Amino acid sequence: MQTTLKVEGMTCGHCEKAVKGALEELEGVEKVEVHLDSGNVEVSHSGVREDKMKEAIEEQGYDVV
Amino acid sequence: MQTTLKVEGMTCGHCEKAVKGALEELEGVEKVEVHLDSGNVEVSHSGVREDKMKEAIEEQGYDVV
Repeated sequence: MQTTLKVEGMTCGHCEKAVKGALEELEGVEKVEVHLDSGNVEVSHSGVREDKMKEAIEEQGYDVV
Repeated sequence: MQTTLKVEGMTCGHCEKAVKGALEELEGVEKVEVHLDSGNVEVSHSGVREDKMKEAIEEQGYDVV
């Protein structure tokens, strides 16, 4: 299944990497696509809870809106 | 001695870290201060050539103007 999260504060390739990396570490996450321009983060996964994803992103210092 | 470089494209703390880290790896560099708002990077050093600093920053993907 796919979840799209809206993330605020990502400004550069390092930010993209930090968010992508944190999500990919979650068990059940298969693929992550980050769109810096829109802030949209598309996560393909096998049923990971949205609050787990949110937490992983926030731990990197970004807001999920 | 102190050199101030004007760097373009640093947007976040990761960028700051990348530039600071690259400069600190140069032999003779003693201290680096990055000001994200202005793009000014202040390098305290013992006679490091400015083109070496410029190169180190550009390798991280930023422009020195």
